[in-house]
Amino acid sequence: MDFSYTPKVEALRAELTRFFDQYIYPNEAAYLQEIQRNRDTGNAWIPTAVIEQLKPRARELGLWNLFLPRSPRAPEGLSNLEYAPLCEIMGRVTWASEVFNCSAPDTGNMETIERYGTEAQKDRWLEPLLAGEIRSAFLMTEPAVASSDATNIQCSIRRDGDEYVINGRKWFASGAGDPRCALYIVMGKTDPDAASHQQQSMVLVPAESKGIEVLRPLSVFGYDDAPHGHMEIELRDVRVPVSNLLLGEGRGFEIAQGRLGPGRIHHCMRIIGAAERALELLCQRVQTRVAFGKRIADHSIWHERIADSRCMIEQARLLTLKAASMMDTVGNKVARAEIAMIKVVAPSMACQILDWAIQAHGGAGVSQDFPLASLYAGIRTLRLADGPDEVHRATIAKLELARHTIRTTA
Amino acid sequence: MDFSYTPKVEALRAELTRFFDQYIYPNEAAYLQEIQRNRDTGNAWIPTAVIEQLKPRARELGLWNLFLPRSPRAPEGLSNLEYAPLCEIMGRVTWASEVFNCSAPDTGNMETIERYGTEAQKDRWLEPLLAGEIRSAFLMTEPAVASSDATNIQCSIRRDGDEYVINGRKWFASGAGDPRCALYIVMGKTDPDAASHQQQSMVLVPAESKGIEVLRPLSVFGYDDAPHGHMEIELRDVRVPVSNLLLGEGRGFEIAQGRLGPGRIHHCMRIIGAAERALELLCQRVQTRVAFGKRIADHSIWHERIADSRCMIEQARLLTLKAASMMDTVGNKVARAEIAMIKVVAPSMACQILDWAIQAHGGAGVSQDFPLASLYAGIRTLRLADGPDEVHRATIAKLELARHTIRTTA
Amino acid sequence: MDFSYTPKVEALRAELTRFFDQYIYPNEAAYLQEIQRNRDTGNAWIPTAVIEQLKPRARELGLWNLFLPRSPRAPEGLSNLEYAPLCEIMGRVTWASEVFNCSAPDTGNMETIERYGTEAQKDRWLEPLLAGEIRSAFLMTEPAVASSDATNIQCSIRRDGDEYVINGRKWFASGAGDPRCALYIVMGKTDPDAASHQQQSMVLVPAESKGIEVLRPLSVFGYDDAPHGHMEIELRDVRVPVSNLLLGEGRGFEIAQGRLGPGRIHHCMRIIGAAERALELLCQRVQTRVAFGKRIADHSIWHERIADSRCMIEQARLLTLKAASMMDTVGNKVARAEIAMIKVVAPSMACQILDWAIQAHGGAGVSQDFPLASLYAGIRTLRLADGPDEVHRATIAKLELARHTIRTTA
Amino acid sequence: MDFSYTPKVEALRAELTRFFDQYIYPNEAAYLQEIQRNRDTGNAWIPTAVIEQLKPRARELGLWNLFLPRSPRAPEGLSNLEYAPLCEIMGRVTWASEVFNCSAPDTGNMETIERYGTEAQKDRWLEPLLAGEIRSAFLMTEPAVASSDATNIQCSIRRDGDEYVINGRKWFASGAGDPRCALYIVMGKTDPDAASHQQQSMVLVPAESKGIEVLRPLSVFGYDDAPHGHMEIELRDVRVPVSNLLLGEGRGFEIAQGRLGPGRIHHCMRIIGAAERALELLCQRVQTRVAFGKRIADHSIWHERIADSRCMIEQARLLTLKAASMMDTVGNKVARAEIAMIKVVAPSMACQILDWAIQAHGGAGVSQDFPLASLYAGIRTLRLADGPDEVHRATIAKLELARHTIRTTA
Repeated sequence: MDFSYTPKVEALRAELTRFFDQYIYPNEAAYLQEIQRNRDTGNAWIPTAVIEQLKPRARELGLWNLFLPRSPRAPEGLSNLEYAPLCEIMGRVTWASEVFNCSAPDTGNMETIERYGTEAQKDRWLEPLLAGEIRSAFLMTEPAVASSDATNIQCSIRRDGDEYVINGRKWFASGAGDPRCALYIVMGKTDPDAASHQQQSMVLVPAESKGIEVLRPLSVFGYDDAPHGHMEIELRDVRVPVSNLLLGEGRGFEIAQGRLGPGRIHHCMRIIGAAERALELLCQRVQTRVAFGKRIADHSIWHERIADSRCMIEQARLLTLKAASMMDTVGNKVARAEIAMIKVVAPSMACQILDWAIQAHGGAGVSQDFPLASLYAGIRTLRLADGPDEVHRATIAKLELARHTIRTTA
Repeated sequence: MDFSYTPKVEALRAELTRFFDQYIYPNEAAYLQEIQRNRDTGNAWIPTAVIEQLKPRARELGLWNLFLPRSPRAPEGLSNLEYAPLCEIMGRVTWASEVFNCSAPDTGNMETIERYGTEAQKDRWLEPLLAGEIRSAFLMTEPAVASSDATNIQCSIRRDGDEYVINGRKWFASGAGDPRCALYIVMGKTDPDAASHQQQSMVLVPAESKGIEVLRPLSVFGYDDAPHGHMEIELRDVRVPVSNLLLGEGRGFEIAQGRLGPGRIHHCMRIIGAAERALELLCQRVQTRVAFGKRIADHSIWHERIADSRCMIEQARLLTLKAASMMDTVGNKVARAEIAMIKVVAPSMACQILDWAIQAHGGAGVSQDFPLASLYAGIRTLRLADGPDEVHRATIAKLELARHTIRTTA
Repeated sequence: MDFSYTPKVEALRAELTRFFDQYIYPNEAAYLQEIQRNRDTGNAWIPTAVIEQLKPRARELGLWNLFLPRSPRAPEGLSNLEYAPLCEIMGRVTWASEVFNCSAPDTGNMETIERYGTEAQKDRWLEPLLAGEIRSAFLMTEPAVASSDATNIQCSIRRDGDEYVINGRKWFASGAGDPRCALYIVMGKTDPDAASHQQQSMVLVPAESKGIEVLRPLSVFGYDDAPHGHMEIELRDVRVPVSNLLLGEGRGFEIAQGRLGPGRIHHCMRIIGAAERALELLCQRVQTRVAFGKRIADHSIWHERIADSRCMIEQARLLTLKAASMMDTVGNKVARAEIAMIKVVAPSMACQILDWAIQAHGGAGVSQDFPLASLYAGIRTLRLADGPDEVHRATIAKLELARHTIRTTA
Repeated sequence: MDFSYTPKVEALRAELTRFFDQYIYPNEAAYLQEIQRNRDTGNAWIPTAVIEQLKPRARELGLWNLFLPRSPRAPEGLSNLEYAPLCEIMGRVTWASEVFNCSAPDTGNMETIERYGTEAQKDRWLEPLLAGEIRSAFLMTEPAVASSDATNIQCSIRRDGDEYVINGRKWFASGAGDPRCALYIVMGKTDPDAASHQQQSMVLVPAESKGIEVLRPLSVFGYDDAPHGHMEIELRDVRVPVSNLLLGEGRGFEIAQGRLGPGRIHHCMRIIGAAERALELLCQRVQTRVAFGKRIADHSIWHERIADSRCMIEQARLLTLKAASMMDTVGNKVARAEIAMIKVVAPSMACQILDWAIQAHGGAGVSQDFPLASLYAGIRTLRLADGPDEVHRATIAKLELARHTIRTTA
């Protein structure tokens, strides 16, 4: 468990930080303005020039696909521990990850195909995803059931000859608002009579398939996050060839477990960056405003909040690094308690710090002039997405209780 | 301190509850849809048919201007204690108060004019406000300074002959997005050299005055709250007759103190209704969803949250009633500790319950399908608006410390 | 729900406050010293002169048995609502209640006998208790089972002719350390085969009965609370006449419900007084100490804590008064949610304020020089005693969930 | 920053764990009983046989003075990072550290003399301390001033020829209750007119010096922690030779800074062990008790608390290891933010987990039957001792604010 950053990682951090200073921070307002212009002229659901123009630069500098574990198709891949500090930087600006082709849910989808897909599936979908030519969505959550318990999922994937026929309604399909979104990974039931964790399968569904209707974008605290979007999607008799199945029938749960670990830790890494950003903005704000005869920074109530923020960030980062290191060395399964822990810890930590930062900014804090409220909305949602806090806490507790059944010292 | 509801209040509560059941709840989705339609067709900044069509019904039933204390122009007015349980019901739906001409900031503005205005000012502005013919905004907060300390305010109100000339930039002028908004009450400095609390004055400024530019709507989390809106407004050499001054030069602070008490308690009353709504939705949700083999309502973690919610609501309501009762009987000045207390207690209480309710709803909780996220955004902002928590806590602490300077028992 | 204090109550409050100023506060150190002297000379388990000498004065001034509801044997009794502000004052000093014959568990025991006892039982036990001649204990909790679920209780009360034979082990029998403790009210099972809430009965057991062994005092944090004490007691074949049964066989649960309501609210009233005391001490301390160039009272972190303390106390008091009022008017059963609420709210509220007060006092706060640590220990225990928080929260949640099963507004 | 345990440390951990299983846990009850017997027979202020009999075994096994950094007099010393996991184990039982000669305040005192003492001072005091032949106390805190601000300290150290004359009152001198306590390190002012951080000096004062009066033990919650004790001590014209000065006149502050870093981190290491113990006891308890039809371990509210406990412990441990590693590599001064962070984080973390564990145990939790309440009392005090939370938070905030003064990204 050596958390020091290697020279390779340090070099990438420096490069990435330079990139943020030169291209990302200076474009934060421009990005919002471009989307507002698109919205005003009738369609916010198109890619932004701001991001598209930065991608070639990022790629040129080697800041591309950093998330991907070393593999035949990503020979320069990084370990989770190496990626963590880089992903953290990306999390400082909500839209920045896409510039580096490191944004969710594409990263999780790429990793899924890389790990569980056939070579043909990789040729067809992984390559254009790695090249940033298409985007993708992950269709798991359903509006009609408590999807926190994945066995509740009802979407039907019925085999009919050489095809699967899919029927179901999914929502919060993030990224499905983007016109370039060409692929859905769909979780559904191939065998409702099997054992409860073997009923599910995952299939690759082209977004252009017949029978698919993108019903509407869902908002997250007022934000529709166009052009990315969180969509509600109806699938009616959607047909795909059986070769689109991932891994095997009844193995959807297994893939979900494998997929969600990395997805979760990437979220947590980004969240830590967001928390750092919030604390930075907070500290700057309280030093530049005066109330009741002194700088707000000189009121001790803010010392309390700043100190607690720093303590919380440091701890969450260390725990994330530990989880990343374990995923690299002992695997996602052995590291499941640690993954669950950071998934519980990081979003709540960041929400608290963001809340303090908002409070420090007054009205400006909830407005579009600072990234605080939108970061809050996105991160608050991560206490629900990829498993709500309650489910992760139950996992941690179960493992902990199991450690204390025999030995009695009292 | 008798908090029982009188028969008059009970009758109004029953009437109002019927109104909500018949007209408000069934229109919640329609209201959002109408605004979305307006937005899609190019202008969300117009009054909604949903609200406008309900106003005559409300007025007919005597559910109109309930907020206004008994006065010559409101002979049927209610006391704060009587209004509290009615206002609470209105708070269950974000847009409902306007149906009854009881929405902020108009209520505070009407009360200000009623209390501090001349008869001519009342004829000109109070009457159309009471009739619901125009709307109004309150221009206090400025983007360039920590407005939590009102002595920081920089907007200049300079006398020039029979006119005042106003220059300044204000923001978070709620309601100024509405095309019917005809009046701004503006706080500024008439004498920057006077004692720090006598530099400020308030003037009535017609929204159509030359030199006024509404720059943009500010968003609250992702909501722009059209058509109401929270606007940033530039005033450049705006001229109004000196007769538009409220109360007297240098008395702006005094008015602010008088105005904000009722404004704050109305917010708190509504917040309690919002918290009740959140708890109701939470309880319904957890009883209708199943996860891991039992209803979510049967997981004891939710008992904890439901019980704490109920305890918090009951306590906050009682404290609000106490503050209301004191305002009625001993006046806003003597009740200032209690007003500060509910201003601190109610928003945080409701934010916590809303957060739990969101968690109980999963993704639906942050979306437009439930009122939870938008209530959260609005109420979170009330930890900043009308004085941030920190300022109210300082007020309470100062009064408390003063009680314990002499007697020593330990 | 009129919470104003009546003139009668105001007069008693004034009298009681005078008594505290004259006799209680000035004796706080003397009380601890007397017990220390007793301990040093070999026996801390004897009544203190400090308390015994004050009792006649209290009785003379009419400050005696104030807790008892109006009844044939207490014609001057007070309602719960009237008693609340008096009980609150008594809670400011841990040992003060006994001076007024208003201390737990005697008050609960007296109320139990008054309500459920026969005239003979009242003559035999209630009269000397009302006169302060004897003391009593309540034997319910058992070390071997989770007594939070009263159906777990295992103490056996077996009928044998005209006698009941009692076998069991009880602990945390508060007050049983006092040599004057002459009566135990014992909860046990008369019929282990009956329905789960009809297996239990309560019997009056003279402390001097054969077969009783007081095993040891339990400490609460480091306090043994001598001479009152919290004792572990073994009952081996203890025999009492069947006429010592309270109310009837199988009605123990019913009595427990009836008894615990008043007992709980008395605790909460006292707790509010303790919280007021803590806040008073905190405010005094921070105004008399200087650190880093200014009074601790001028560091805004303390404004935060003082303000939150005041908000919490006000709210808890109002909720306690509401519960008291409901117990007086609609009965303990209808008021059970409110009783559960204050039982959850008050101890946690006071523990938080005491914790802040301790922090404000530095090392002195945890020491014997201030009453803070001992109040903390006693009140922390009340999150367990008379039903742990978790059980009361479950009660509140159950009632709340039941309110939201039909109507759906979303 | 490699936090893996080296083979040397792993071997010591295994040895220490075995020692605890064989000798410490089985003696927990015996230790309390021995002190109770001593108390009952008139003197609790004598060393316990339990500890004294274990010391030779510990020493024999090489489990002795593990705390001491490698130095000429401790050639086998460990680094902070190496010591951390060992110290953590010792923290599982309040009295265990002394068995290994690793208990506060002796460890801090030894480290102080080792670092700042002359060879003569080391011969005279360090050797017998390392041998466990004498004990020592640290006299810093004073009852009359806010000692959190060390510049407030008033104890006078006046030079008179070849002697210093010391006058002052100190309290919470932990360990001074032990009859073997032979040495006091006293902080006082040699020059009240110097710059505020150069007024203080430290001198070595033999406990047997004339003019010293140990006034009384202070209790911590109800514990007097005999025979260790927290004493109030009066020094009247106490004379020591000038050669007893540590480091130099006016350098007391400098020593305090140097001394408190290691002292603080040792406390935090132990606290983590205490938290682990609490969580272990909690998990065992909830699996062995049944309430309302199921094991308490199956109520999800306990999953929440167990999971949060595990998350908090993991994070606090990692932060402690980081601080330890930095102390080893970049020094206490550079690591001062990290030391302050763990000092804020660890005690509050453990108090919360202990509070939950107490709650899980019911009445047993606050009693002498489990170590929970006494651990709570001791650790709660560490939110005050060695600098209260507020002071450490101010340190962290100051450093954080300084990082964000120049760069502005928003």
